[in-house]
Amino acid sequence: MHEFELIERFFAPLACRNVSVPLGDDAAVIECSGSMAVCTDTLVAGRHFLPDAPAEAVAWKALAVNVSDLLAMNATPRHYTLALTLPQADDAWLAGFVRGLDEAQHAFGCCLLGGDTTGGQTLTVTITALGELRGVPWRRAGAQPRDALMLTGPVGAAALGLKQLLGEVCLNEEMVAAQLKPRLPLDAWQALADYPVHAAIDISDGLVQDAGHMAAASGVGLRLYVEKIPMQKGVADWCARQHDWSLPLAGGEDYQLLLSVAAQTAARIEAAGLAVPIGEVIEGEGVSVLHHGQPVSLANGGFQHF
Amino acid sequence: MHEFELIERFFAPLACRNVSVPLGDDAAVIECSGSMAVCTDTLVAGRHFLPDAPAEAVAWKALAVNVSDLLAMNATPRHYTLALTLPQADDAWLAGFVRGLDEAQHAFGCCLLGGDTTGGQTLTVTITALGELRGVPWRRAGAQPRDALMLTGPVGAAALGLKQLLGEVCLNEEMVAAQLKPRLPLDAWQALADYPVHAAIDISDGLVQDAGHMAAASGVGLRLYVEKIPMQKGVADWCARQHDWSLPLAGGEDYQLLLSVAAQTAARIEAAGLAVPIGEVIEGEGVSVLHHGQPVSLANGGFQHF
Repeated sequence: MHEFELIERFFAPLACRNVSVPLGDDAAVIECSGSMAVCTDTLVAGRHFLPDAPAEAVAWKALAVNVSDLLAMNATPRHYTLALTLPQADDAWLAGFVRGLDEAQHAFGCCLLGGDTTGGQTLTVTITALGELRGVPWRRAGAQPRDALMLTGPVGAAALGLKQLLGEVCLNEEMVAAQLKPRLPLDAWQALADYPVHAAIDISDGLVQDAGHMAAASGVGLRLYVEKIPMQKGVADWCARQHDWSLPLAGGEDYQLLLSVAAQTAARIEAAGLAVPIGEVIEGEGVSVLHHGQPVSLANGGFQHF
Repeated sequence: MHEFELIERFFAPLACRNVSVPLGDDAAVIECSGSMAVCTDTLVAGRHFLPDAPAEAVAWKALAVNVSDLLAMNATPRHYTLALTLPQADDAWLAGFVRGLDEAQHAFGCCLLGGDTTGGQTLTVTITALGELRGVPWRRAGAQPRDALMLTGPVGAAALGLKQLLGEVCLNEEMVAAQLKPRLPLDAWQALADYPVHAAIDISDGLVQDAGHMAAASGVGLRLYVEKIPMQKGVADWCARQHDWSLPLAGGEDYQLLLSVAAQTAARIEAAGLAVPIGEVIEGEGVSVLHHGQPVSLANGGFQHF
């Protein structure tokens, strides 16, 4: 199938309509005023998703990982471009991919501006997302000593879902769904517009690693309490059995937001059910993790008690 | 090398400085007002460049192909994002790649907003470029019967350069340079701001094919005269010897602009030395090609006389 036919058949229905020049010209043209957030993320088959992952799930995740970065910046998703490298143009796969994108763009409130489809050995999906700032940017640098650290939702399920897909554990479909089709904390994010946020980061690379980025950018230390970190029951049970908290601390791919807010703001955010406190900002540097008062540390490839 | 180290070492020097939030956060933030053009293009090793192409050339071309699309839309290049999939993080290759990008972004007047670096089997470079419209968009749809068709520069050299790199011909370095490091008609494009352009397209997929897109979008026919098409002497000589005009007509990768303008505008543009007339817009559809009055047609894989 020729690229132009492929675009017409599969991607044209996803195109933004309320723009000055839609998909199909040398470039799309949008009207903008104010601050715009821009981010790019790539998913490579065999690295970021299993080679046999359903096409719908690959599409959903490719858009979700980018939208998550926009949310972390305090930007409302508006538009995205898609660069797709395909080993072959398989109709059924493409139809599934477009269904997944369609569902995702409706869920996230954005539409397709343009893209490029190329042949290549390895299925690769790159999305660049554009969002409209709805207030001040939520930078990584901005966490202040005595701030509360809050998390918008449970972590660890995506990593446990991957173990299940790899046949390492057998649990339930909830974990697999968290891996294949990660949910974003959209409702909480909408409501968070009303609260002053000092710093925010998307924790898709793993809670402790991304907390480390916030600590470094802000010039502070962060302290996390494992027993306060929200996790699905299946994750909590698995960690308790293994005496290993690596899944919620470092599993990654959870697409929740870590927020640093003043203590009084945290109380209001918690009361509104938008996020839960999981730690605090302190003078110093780095990230320390405690479990019921005991230091937890990265050892033997996992986060365990000393 | 870890991704964060790689970004810090290689890509941070390319980052935009005069933006609200530069590279290094979840997303970059730019301030914008008015119309913005957005486009994406991917280069895959072995498809869009030879696997042994110099890193500098790959970088230059990846940005050039995107900037060419912005120019074709009448947009001034401002920002870009980079998604790079690398088989291995080779220091010397990366240093060359960054040199190429640095040179290109200075030549084209844009800077790096953000990106993503991933591992993967096949070297793949995706750039998304953002540009500021400097007037009305130059759409593909807009060519009118009796318009003159103009080309901003010579075509055919990139395709001949590829033949030379593949060892099929032995000519001179000019052709190889056109393939490896295509020049954009930046000076002509700057001056064209003062002229009313009815329609424009970047002819990177080949003159006749892209002319066909303009014809279809505009609902008109286009007629091209081979003897008027500007080409390097080496290209013209090669075509005359082979009795085959495929290189300038369909070789592609030349990154010139095809413009449709009123006849009186064309005379002024030609007098100013910004582009040369190569044909005209007629009632009808499709693209017809004549060489000294004789129809030229695609046959045996090339454009030849009947």
